[in-house]
Parts: sequence; structure tokens; C-alpha cells
Amino acid sequence: MSNIIALLTDFGDKDGFTGTVKGVIYTIAPEVKVVDITHHVNPQDINAASWILASSYKYFPAGTIFVCVVDPGVGSSRKQILVKIHDYYFIGPDNGFLTRIINDIDPQLVISLDNPEYWLNNVKQTFHGRDIFGPVAAYLAKSNKDINTFGTQIPSETLIRLQLHKPYKDSKKIYGSVVYVDHFGNLVTDIPDGWITNTNVLVSVGRAKLKGLQSAYSNVDIGQPMAIIGSDGFLEVSINCGNAAQSLEVSVNERVVVELP
Amino acid sequence: MSNIIALLTDFGDKDGFTGTVKGVIYTIAPEVKVVDITHHVNPQDINAASWILASSYKYFPAGTIFVCVVDPGVGSSRKQILVKIHDYYFIGPDNGFLTRIINDIDPQLVISLDNPEYWLNNVKQTFHGRDIFGPVAAYLAKSNKDINTFGTQIPSETLIRLQLHKPYKDSKKIYGSVVYVDHFGNLVTDIPDGWITNTNVLVSVGRAKLKGLQSAYSNVDIGQPMAIIGSDGFLEVSINCGNAAQSLEVSVNERVVVELP
Amino acid sequence: MSNIIALLTDFGDKDGFTGTVKGVIYTIAPEVKVVDITHHVNPQDINAASWILASSYKYFPAGTIFVCVVDPGVGSSRKQILVKIHDYYFIGPDNGFLTRIINDIDPQLVISLDNPEYWLNNVKQTFHGRDIFGPVAAYLAKSNKDINTFGTQIPSETLIRLQLHKPYKDSKKIYGSVVYVDHFGNLVTDIPDGWITNTNVLVSVGRAKLKGLQSAYSNVDIGQPMAIIGSDGFLEVSINCGNAAQSLEVSVNERVVVELP
Repeated sequence: MSNIIALLTDFGDKDGFTGTVKGVIYTIAPEVKVVDITHHVNPQDINAASWILASSYKYFPAGTIFVCVVDPGVGSSRKQILVKIHDYYFIGPDNGFLTRIINDIDPQLVISLDNPEYWLNNVKQTFHGRDIFGPVAAYLAKSNKDINTFGTQIPSETLIRLQLHKPYKDSKKIYGSVVYVDHFGNLVTDIPDGWITNTNVLVSVGRAKLKGLQSAYSNVDIGQPMAIIGSDGFLEVSINCGNAAQSLEVSVNERVVVELP
Repeated sequence: MSNIIALLTDFGDKDGFTGTVKGVIYTIAPEVKVVDITHHVNPQDINAASWILASSYKYFPAGTIFVCVVDPGVGSSRKQILVKIHDYYFIGPDNGFLTRIINDIDPQLVISLDNPEYWLNNVKQTFHGRDIFGPVAAYLAKSNKDINTFGTQIPSETLIRLQLHKPYKDSKKIYGSVVYVDHFGNLVTDIPDGWITNTNVLVSVGRAKLKGLQSAYSNVDIGQPMAIIGSDGFLEVSINCGNAAQSLEVSVNERVVVELP
Repeated sequence: MSNIIALLTDFGDKDGFTGTVKGVIYTIAPEVKVVDITHHVNPQDINAASWILASSYKYFPAGTIFVCVVDPGVGSSRKQILVKIHDYYFIGPDNGFLTRIINDIDPQLVISLDNPEYWLNNVKQTFHGRDIFGPVAAYLAKSNKDINTFGTQIPSETLIRLQLHKPYKDSKKIYGSVVYVDHFGNLVTDIPDGWITNTNVLVSVGRAKLKGLQSAYSNVDIGQPMAIIGSDGFLEVSINCGNAAQSLEVSVNERVVVELP
């Protein structure tokens, strides 16, 4: 069983927030390994957090505990949850951060974290990552993963879900959208590679019209835009050694159309 | 006893500085865990480093060794120190980074790090984090924490301290200031929650006048400013899902006044 | 023998890229320690990566495995390599990232990573850090470092090398260039300290003319430029508590001239 606790937050890295959460975890469970996924989700951007988590978690060892804190509702009456999905554990506020995972896979167990025995004393209303989610993750890693200890079981249907656009297609075209822009400016779409059975397509996004699917960025000249299947198995639009989001002035939610041959 | 070395610097993350310090530490003490608090203190901002350290250190396991390198005087005659405070160890240049801790707690032991036996050979005058502070922390973690080995004991009164504004109050008002602005733009003040015994206050900072203390960001509408007790037990001014520092154009040292009911 | 895998990439930190690579590594080799050197190399800047790696690697424990992924050619026919140099292992695309190390030291063994047995299944053409380099590093850490298992031996002369300016000198002057600008704005040059046997020099870079070599930043007034031998043993131009690159408007490749006394 893994002893990894993976963190995904919008805490940034200029303050002591993430270090403090790690201090709390190592105090309770000195033997765990804390791994950062990212702390640079834009403040309060649950949608991006959901995408990053869905594209990352499967690459972690079975048993990994994910703590995902993008939490505009901290201190309000929003639930705090612990969710078991296959061999993974997810901890965070109930605000939709699991949407892109639970739309595909039914959780085995959902716990409302309402047992303060595993929280820090004197919980503050602005930092549940430190006072609730971190400690629960650490005690869970230490325990034999009996997750009922931490609260009350609730039905998975009650979990908050983000409303996502869904891609669709007819015999001539696929209609999707940009769901994420990465560090390199690659435009990640929600169009799965399985929908594109012929590489002789025409991809339109913003003012760009791109002929064909490429198999490597360097198949086109430096600075040229191109379409490619990205590392998560979805259509992406990129610029070889450039930034597609900036150059094409495209961001999340922009419509993408694929014309089939 | 902890085997954690926690780093707090202004090294940034674009170079190999922090990786190099970790390489040095793991070479000397392979069994320790190095934890990053932050490396994004603004260059030479000892005041911010002092605040971050004071708000973080108590959450780390007893025995943790903190290496705090914000060091405009590197290479000069400024002392380099190892300070024991309760069960924690602090290593860095003697420039005031401990001010917010030692103003409250007397150090048990202060060592001037003048024994080069525990430094790297060939110390360079611009990178004592790599050549002195990192190695000393690693040897300290390996040893049984006999800190006298590393240098000469000096009186704690000789430690450099930052001159800090102090909040004060009369029967009608509390006068404080903004001491830190975090990643979210929250304005952290030096007014302790214990001074505000009634939530029916009027808080003034910059052009904002805020009625009452809130218990959660989401108690006010999105984009609205509000006052709340922050996670360190001090009054903060925030904007729900927004950035108070930017929107109110307020930064560190701005005066804050609380009118009592 | 070390169990450290050190990462140096241009992946940034806003996505799940580095976390995913760590997940892959810990799944294969749970006992290793993954250490970040940096993930903030400018996208596709192999030159900077080469400089950072050369200045960092010697400070890591013998046996450390370095995974260096700045990879504009991902998915193309560029080779992927595993190189043993003294007690260190280097993994990445064959694109010159080792230039500053192998210009000084002949590699003992160079392997073209062509054995897919140690890759993830279903390799994607845009993320070899996750699918090839990370897994190979993890299996190498687990194995007894028999690196022939991972592919085919090739001659070290075939490795791609960056074309670097070389500093040169005559009896009166040294001619070099800025090779790197760090987080603090220090201008790192390629002029080794051994070439400057007298500190009574005149250093010219951009519009700055600096008399003498200083031994500490604080030897000059705050805001003043100065020349100093940096932590890697090369001449640097800095501003005390300031940013030389910004203030002097100098960047990489700018000519530096040292007039000898």
C-alpha cells in the first residue's frame, strides 16, 4: 500500500501555506511522502483543479491519498469529503473537484468528514487545508485505511458536480471546446482521440484552421500551429516552440470544430 | 526526534539554487527529509521571511531544523547563527529573521556558527546556503543535536532584531498595520483576535470601511471586501473570491484602525 | 549508493506534469527520493538547462540519477539517452543538455534508450518525461545500475552538443560573455576566476564599467553595480540588493570584457 499524500491546491508558493500543511502531515505521520501535484491552480478555479486531478491521479501508486484544496467556500456550510475510488482516496471540500473522475467512475465510498477527532484543535475558518484536510489525510495514511472512522457515509449522488460542456459529433463534424491551457500554451480540448479515426481532418479553433493531425510538434516549422493528440488522449492545438494560447488568443471554453474527411 | 530540514529562502525556483542545497544536504545526511516552506520571499525581504517563519514553524514536528536564507549581507561580517527555541532549531544569517519568534520566546541557546569543520570546503562569498547553512543543518540532523559543536555560544540579546510597528489600543479604537499580503491578496494585520472581543466593529484600511467581523469569506457577496480573523489569529481584510491588496490598492505597512462598539 | 532522482525540466508548475512524473517514479520505485532542481527553465531553452545542470550536479550524492527534460524535439527522431559520467547518471533527449558537462569530462558510457520494456505502455508523442524518461530512471534506481539493460551502447562522440562561445584572453584583456541570468538578476559570465589573478581589473558589460573585484555584495552601496566571483567560480556582475539584468538591460550572450591591470 502506498504511503503517498499528493497535494493539489491554489495556495501558490509565496507564503508558508503548503509548508505548514506538510509540517502538520509529517507531525502526525512522519513516514509518509508528501508529493506536490501543483499549488498554482488559479485562485478558486475548481474547474482547472478537476482537470489536473483527473489527468494525474492514475499515474500515482495504488493507495495514494489526494488532498485537493481549491476552496472558495471555506468556513461556509459546504461539506468536506473523503471519497474512495478504486484504490485511491480523495480529500477536500465538496465543490465539484472530483467531477471529471466521478463522471466516469462511481465512487465506492463517500464520507462526510464530520468527526473532529482527527482535526487540529481550534480549527480556523480560513485554512481547512491545515486544520482539517491535512490532518485527516495524515491519520488516514497512518491507519489501515478504515475510512468510516473519519465521518458519516453519504450517497455518492449527493456530491456536487460541475456542469461541463460535452463534446458531440455528427457524421461530418465533431464539436468540442478548449478545457485547459497548459504552461506551454497548448490548448487541450475535450475531444477524445477515439473520435478521430482518420488523421486527414480540418481542425478549427479561434482564427486557426489546421490541416491534418501531426505526430510530433517538430513536424511543422517553428512558430507554426498544429493539431496533435495530447498526452491525456485528447485533441490539442499547439505551436511548435511557441505558445498557442497567446498567439491564437484562445482560452478555456473556446469552441473547437473538427471536420472529418 | 524529527529528521526534517525545512527551507525558507528568497532563492526563487528558476535556477538550481534550492536543488543544489538539497543535494548538499542529502550527500551529508541521506536519511533526512527536506521540506520547502517557500523560496519566493521577495529578494532581501527579511521582514516577510520573519512573518512566514513565525506563522509556520509551530506546525512542524518537534526537532525540525529550519534553514532560513534571505541574506543581503552574504559575504560581509554579519554573523551566521544557530538558535534553539523550544524543540526547534533555526539556522541562517543574523539579520533579524527570527524577530517575530524571539520577541515572544527567549531562545534557549544561540550559537555563532564559526566552526568551519562543518562547512563545505572552499566557501564562496555569495552562496552560504549551499556552503555553510545547508551543511550545518545536515550535520546537525545527523548528530545527536549537540549544537555546541558548530560554534561559539553568544548571548541571545546580541541577536539582530527588526524594528516592528506595534499595535496599540485605547477604549474606543485599536491601531495596527498590515504586516503581510498573501498569495490571495489577503491583508494580514498585527491586530490579535484577542483584542476584538465583540464582532460588531468597524474596520478601516485604505479607502475601505468594513462593518462587522465575518466568519467565512462567503458570508459576503463575491467581489465584496470583508474583515475576518485569519488562520494565524490576527485580523485580516479580504475580498470574497478576489484580491484585496490589488482592489483596495493597499500594501504592507498600511495603517488599520478598528473602532470598537 | 544514492537513491535520488533529480528532475530538471521546463514543465513549469501550474499543471500536473511534474506531479505525474513523480507518481510514475514512485509507482515503480517507492523507495527513491525525487528532488526538484527546477521546472522553470524557459520553454525549450536547452542552453539554460545545460548551465543549471552543470552548476548543480556535483553537489548531489554519488549515484544520483538526473532526468533532464527540455525537449522541443519530443516525438521526432531525436535519440533519447542515458549517460554515465563518473558516479552520476543522466537521462533525457539527445539535444545538447549535457554540453557543459561533457565538454570537460568524457562520459564513461552512453546508451541509446531503445528498449521499450522499461517504458510505460502506450507511449504518447508529447510527454516522454512521463512515458519514457521517468520510468527508465525509476527502473535504473531499482536495478543494480546495469545500464546496458535499457538500450544500445553508442559512441559518446555522437552526442549532440550545443555550440558555445568560448572566452579568450590576451595579455591585456579577457573577452567573455554572459551565459546565464539568475533569479536575482545576477549576470553570470563564462570567465573563470582562475583567469583573474589580480582584483584590480576593469569589467565592462553593457553600459557598466566596474572597477575592481568585490568580495561581498555589501561592499558597495545598495543599488550600485559591482563585479564579484560567483558561487560557481565564474565572474559575475551584480547590483547590491538590486537586479543587474534589469537595471543594466543586459541579457544572455552580451559581451563582457575584463581589462587587466
